Amino acid sequence: MKIFEHVMNNLYLNRTTGKWHIQDPASQRLTWNKPPKSVLVIKKIRDASLLQPFKELCVYLTEENNMIVYVEKKVLEDPAIAHDENFGPVKKKFCTFSEDYDDISNQIDFIICLGGDGTLLYASSLFQGSVPPVMAFHLGSLGFLTPFNFENFQSQVTQVIEGNAALVLRSRLKVRVVKEHREKKVIQNGIEENGMVPTSLEKEVVKQIMQYQVLNEVVVDRGPSSYLSNVDVYLDGHLITTVQGDGVIVSTPTGSTAYAAAAGASMIHPNVPAIMITPICPHSLSFRPIVVPAGVELKITLSPDARNTAWVSFDGRKRQEICHGDSISITTSCYPLPSICFRDPVSDWFESLAECLHWNVRKKQNNFAVEEEEF
Amino acid sequence: MKIFEHVMNNLYLNRTTGKWHIQDPASQRLTWNKPPKSVLVIKKIRDASLLQPFKELCVYLTEENNMIVYVEKKVLEDPAIAHDENFGPVKKKFCTFSEDYDDISNQIDFIICLGGDGTLLYASSLFQGSVPPVMAFHLGSLGFLTPFNFENFQSQVTQVIEGNAALVLRSRLKVRVVKEHREKKVIQNGIEENGMVPTSLEKEVVKQIMQYQVLNEVVVDRGPSSYLSNVDVYLDGHLITTVQGDGVIVSTPTGSTAYAAAAGASMIHPNVPAIMITPICPHSLSFRPIVVPAGVELKITLSPDARNTAWVSFDGRKRQEICHGDSISITTSCYPLPSICFRDPVSDWFESLAECLHWNVRKKQNNFAVEEEEF
Amino acid sequence: MKIFEHVMNNLYLNRTTGKWHIQDPASQRLTWNKPPKSVLVIKKIRDASLLQPFKELCVYLTEENNMIVYVEKKVLEDPAIAHDENFGPVKKKFCTFSEDYDDISNQIDFIICLGGDGTLLYASSLFQGSVPPVMAFHLGSLGFLTPFNFENFQSQVTQVIEGNAALVLRSRLKVRVVKEHREKKVIQNGIEENGMVPTSLEKEVVKQIMQYQVLNEVVVDRGPSSYLSNVDVYLDGHLITTVQGDGVIVSTPTGSTAYAAAAGASMIHPNVPAIMITPICPHSLSFRPIVVPAGVELKITLSPDARNTAWVSFDGRKRQEICHGDSISITTSCYPLPSICFRDPVSDWFESLAECLHWNVRKKQNNFAVEEEEF
Amino acid sequence: MKIFEHVMNNLYLNRTTGKWHIQDPASQRLTWNKPPKSVLVIKKIRDASLLQPFKELCVYLTEENNMIVYVEKKVLEDPAIAHDENFGPVKKKFCTFSEDYDDISNQIDFIICLGGDGTLLYASSLFQGSVPPVMAFHLGSLGFLTPFNFENFQSQVTQVIEGNAALVLRSRLKVRVVKEHREKKVIQNGIEENGMVPTSLEKEVVKQIMQYQVLNEVVVDRGPSSYLSNVDVYLDGHLITTVQGDGVIVSTPTGSTAYAAAAGASMIHPNVPAIMITPICPHSLSFRPIVVPAGVELKITLSPDARNTAWVSFDGRKRQEICHGDSISITTSCYPLPSICFRDPVSDWFESLAECLHWNVRKKQNNFAVEEEEF
Repeated sequence: MKIFEHVMNNLYLNRTTGKWHIQDPASQRLTWNKPPKSVLVIKKIRDASLLQPFKELCVYLTEENNMIVYVEKKVLEDPAIAHDENFGPVKKKFCTFSEDYDDISNQIDFIICLGGDGTLLYASSLFQGSVPPVMAFHLGSLGFLTPFNFENFQSQVTQVIEGNAALVLRSRLKVRVVKEHREKKVIQNGIEENGMVPTSLEKEVVKQIMQYQVLNEVVVDRGPSSYLSNVDVYLDGHLITTVQGDGVIVSTPTGSTAYAAAAGASMIHPNVPAIMITPICPHSLSFRPIVVPAGVELKITLSPDARNTAWVSFDGRKRQEICHGDSISITTSCYPLPSICFRDPVSDWFESLAECLHWNVRKKQNNFAVEEEEF
Repeated sequence: MKIFEHVMNNLYLNRTTGKWHIQDPASQRLTWNKPPKSVLVIKKIRDASLLQPFKELCVYLTEENNMIVYVEKKVLEDPAIAHDENFGPVKKKFCTFSEDYDDISNQIDFIICLGGDGTLLYASSLFQGSVPPVMAFHLGSLGFLTPFNFENFQSQVTQVIEGNAALVLRSRLKVRVVKEHREKKVIQNGIEENGMVPTSLEKEVVKQIMQYQVLNEVVVDRGPSSYLSNVDVYLDGHLITTVQGDGVIVSTPTGSTAYAAAAGASMIHPNVPAIMITPICPHSLSFRPIVVPAGVELKITLSPDARNTAWVSFDGRKRQEICHGDSISITTSCYPLPSICFRDPVSDWFESLAECLHWNVRKKQNNFAVEEEEF
Repeated sequence: MKIFEHVMNNLYLNRTTGKWHIQDPASQRLTWNKPPKSVLVIKKIRDASLLQPFKELCVYLTEENNMIVYVEKKVLEDPAIAHDENFGPVKKKFCTFSEDYDDISNQIDFIICLGGDGTLLYASSLFQGSVPPVMAFHLGSLGFLTPFNFENFQSQVTQVIEGNAALVLRSRLKVRVVKEHREKKVIQNGIEENGMVPTSLEKEVVKQIMQYQVLNEVVVDRGPSSYLSNVDVYLDGHLITTVQGDGVIVSTPTGSTAYAAAAGASMIHPNVPAIMITPICPHSLSFRPIVVPAGVELKITLSPDARNTAWVSFDGRKRQEICHGDSISITTSCYPLPSICFRDPVSDWFESLAECLHWNVRKKQNNFAVEEEEF
Repeated sequence: MKIFEHVMNNLYLNRTTGKWHIQDPASQRLTWNKPPKSVLVIKKIRDASLLQPFKELCVYLTEENNMIVYVEKKVLEDPAIAHDENFGPVKKKFCTFSEDYDDISNQIDFIICLGGDGTLLYASSLFQGSVPPVMAFHLGSLGFLTPFNFENFQSQVTQVIEGNAALVLRSRLKVRVVKEHREKKVIQNGIEENGMVPTSLEKEVVKQIMQYQVLNEVVVDRGPSSYLSNVDVYLDGHLITTVQGDGVIVSTPTGSTAYAAAAGASMIHPNVPAIMITPICPHSLSFRPIVVPAGVELKITLSPDARNTAWVSFDGRKRQEICHGDSISITTSCYPLPSICFRDPVSDWFESLAECLHWNVRKKQNNFAVEEEEF
């Protein structure tokens, strides 16, 4: 029998056994090279209900586990923390930092989030390179990114520290925004015979480049304008379509259950290596969302005939205007976010679909098509 | 800097360079271990417009390329072929076979299809194991699976024979249907003292197992009934949801642009390793299609409280009833269908989206939101 | 000031006041010309949980209100009713009938339904002309058509008998199916000179006409075939579109929350005078449901190039095949179904949207777009 | 036979014949009480391609038909018109006006629009009371509101002047925005014994009320914010739902093919007396658009727990912020816009569905469900 040795993205040749197999998407587990020592605790600010859990968690990490706890300065500025004398001894051991001044991305073994999905998006933004594993507690209602509840947090944290946990690697998008500014510049035009240095004023194109790691989505929309946005989307250098409408969402599978779902996208499990492109209220009835393979290079620019600018944001943050000449390049990041599962990647996802989106949750009903004998 | 060595489905560690990289989804190319000699030509039957191209192609393959051409018997039974004397010498060299009697799956190097997408679905059904590369010509309008037009077919076939072509590996689904029949059986109950052999009549459960390779989709629906179907869907052994509605589609990315698109699914590029689950007219407003990783094990059964049977079909074929006790198991097949690209996997797909589904194809229009100064 | 005396469908000129006004859609109330004496009680059969309520209701109507109760024969054939001696005296006073033999449509003042939405669809089918007011009790979960719960049924029934109730007039569709049969017929060809009567055998087209009153929808679909259906839709004599897909639903506003909702339609309040046309899994991505004014004449036939027949059903009943030459004509019926409200047409509708379809029912969540200061 | 005299919105009792009938939605025709003398010509500004048609039309109206032409001042300020000497004699006869200073709403018999759909939205905004009939020419691609092409404009205009035309009455929405400002106010507190007038500074709630007539839609959205909007929708005084998402569109049937279609609404023929409520990217998967009867009273406010303001616009114009305490009341206007048809209300609508939205326009394709014998 002839063998056609074609390989799919998720087919692997096991060199030992000589057999092709398909990777089990639910098999990824947490492994520590050495026991984690430093833990970053992220707490949603301005939420009084989180103070007590935050303190209990920090005491447990510091005193019971001898871990070094990193906390952002502004979290500690909350008067209820600043003035709590009982909490003083623990606070003293904290390493503190400020988002805009300190880069702690190389010093953290492990992240714990307290709050909603926003805490994870924020954690993601702090790590532009590789990200330590994240354990996220929802204190109120379940979120897509926060599978743990805080009851029995001690035993759950211990399990994770001991490496006893399943992991889902959430792919991120690497986004590069190139903005062109035309700046006035004085040009020296050589030296004249009389020794004078003649100058002239010209406009020079200055490129400004920004880079972001995105966990949910990049959104390009019409911003405050009533006009449709009008943007071109390129894939691997080819123009694939022009978006006329409120905008376009480029999302990870993780983001497919967030804004993209609201805009009509199918929902993608985070273990699928893909990028989703979803139009927002497109003018064209046939403009259905599409899913392309992880690893393609997308580029978004204003269409040449766009009469208005567009606006871009990254996980809902860093909102900025996009003008003619600017471009947004998007591809799958090499740095996924390892998110610790409560049960496993499949169970956690279906539970959050039901809890967060009420996916196909309903009372069973009688048929609406009714047969004659049974009405 | 610490490194977190987590790997995503499509991230590979290049051991030579030591760098992680993401597989380029468009990079797959056709490679022949040795030059192809035997070619299966599949022609849509009962379509007079295909006769002339079929003959020209066969003459070219046989006489110019010295290839062995396999053709199904019923194709040659068409009077216009059977009675064409000029075609006689070519026909004599054909290897013929019948779908139901002959297994040619080990004898073919290469497949050429003439007709619509249905020819490829048919080709797929002939190969339950590995599939040779397929080159598909559309003679009329472009299909999703038939990227080549027949003009200049000679040079295009030559390019493919020379190994000069891009390839898209279309994943297939391996489907196993287990049906339970209760059959009457005479049971021998030992031998009595008097030497008689007493018997009793009992019903015995007999399992019948069928297996299919599917390129587009498995459809479970209500069949001729006016009743809703009521089926349970399991993933890796866990009940994930119950479908109340006209039915459910489990499709490959290739199938996401076929029936699943009609049922509201987002469209997935064939290079994404995934399985799509799409309800058909679900009773629940929140039952959005979902995309799960290739390699998961799905199982579909009637719900315990279903008052009606359901019907299943495979790429639109082999339609059969599903009763209580039966089950349908679905997973990604180890045998994808290698489909030869006209240009490359990305260009071909976007061209067929536009041509076949009019995806976001429209005249540009004025804004419907109009500013005051511009009306 | 000039007046442009254009009138909209729901604008009325009050001749007394000389002012135009818009009819309040929620203002319709039940009025009895004379007190209702005869009541038809419809009970879902084969549902043991309904027996006790059925008996209590009948006793109340007969003994407390001196009403004449009509019941279908098959309801009384239920052994639990037939053998209940306590119920005997009440049963004796019943008027009984059989759906297929007796026309009671002129003898009923008032209908009471016990069961799900199917009981109302069944009641509708019994009245091909004008329909008496219907009071519908849900015994289990709330339905769209069954707003009353059975607790305190006495006081609720009394209120209705006293004319103290709001009413929603649910428009129905009048459907005319014309089927052509070609029958063999012996033709007499005059008398020959020799006195013989020569005959010949010809096929004659025989038209069979059926008419239905439909409360939810007419469905035309592909029936048991795997093929797409292919039907033409005419409006007031003009071909407006061809449906390629699983089929098409023509529904009343009442039906917009049933099968049409499952197929993706927007939901229409029953007081809107309109007809909804909804494709079922259309091949075309741009085939959105449309809403046309009540009173237009629709006609559906097989497309001339359809290779398969289609199937039609009426409120899920009377399923039959449609062939080339047959036609289905649909328009708004002059005989709406007056459905008695629990509260009023608006409150009842929004309550059933929430209860039956979980319309926008969800826990409030945190934003998925997260601002920097708030994460 | 008993008669149940229930009447639907569009059922009329013909007192002469004694029969109920359903109004033919396509029957409305233009009738002039006396021949039209004054015509308002609206031209899209800053579009050079419209200059020649504009001049030809004005010459035809003035010189051939002796009509008084009203033109907005800013139209004549276009240099190409201002400096055209040939056009001078015609211009002298014009009545000119400025949108912000002159109210011409009582002086116009008839409106002609040249340009896109925006010209009609603009015309609508000029007439807050009753609107004269509008004849709209598209000069480029067909719009939903501009059915006439300019070729043979003379004979077409003559037909309309002679009253030979079908009419569609496009319902409008009457929108009342009540904004609360808290203004500082010096309060006089009576006169003291010493003759002094003591004052104190208090904040007083000042209500500002604005009213608009809307032809397409009222949009309430999140404006420039990344946050979800969070607004409550009331119907006839009852809270029917809370919108969490990008916003909500309240549209006329005319507007159902504009922004509402982009947001996923079914499309409603302008002769249906209804109001459509469509969420924009709602957080909830089950939040389907709904259609309620014309004449209901809607009210939209910020939800009490909304953390952000919302923004409202009217046919894309007059964009403004909505804060806590403000409210937007919407109901069907008594002043529809009479729009002259090219053919009739039904043909025109389906033609624009096909031309503007490509509604179900596609090449016929082969089945994607393929039977075994036919592949």
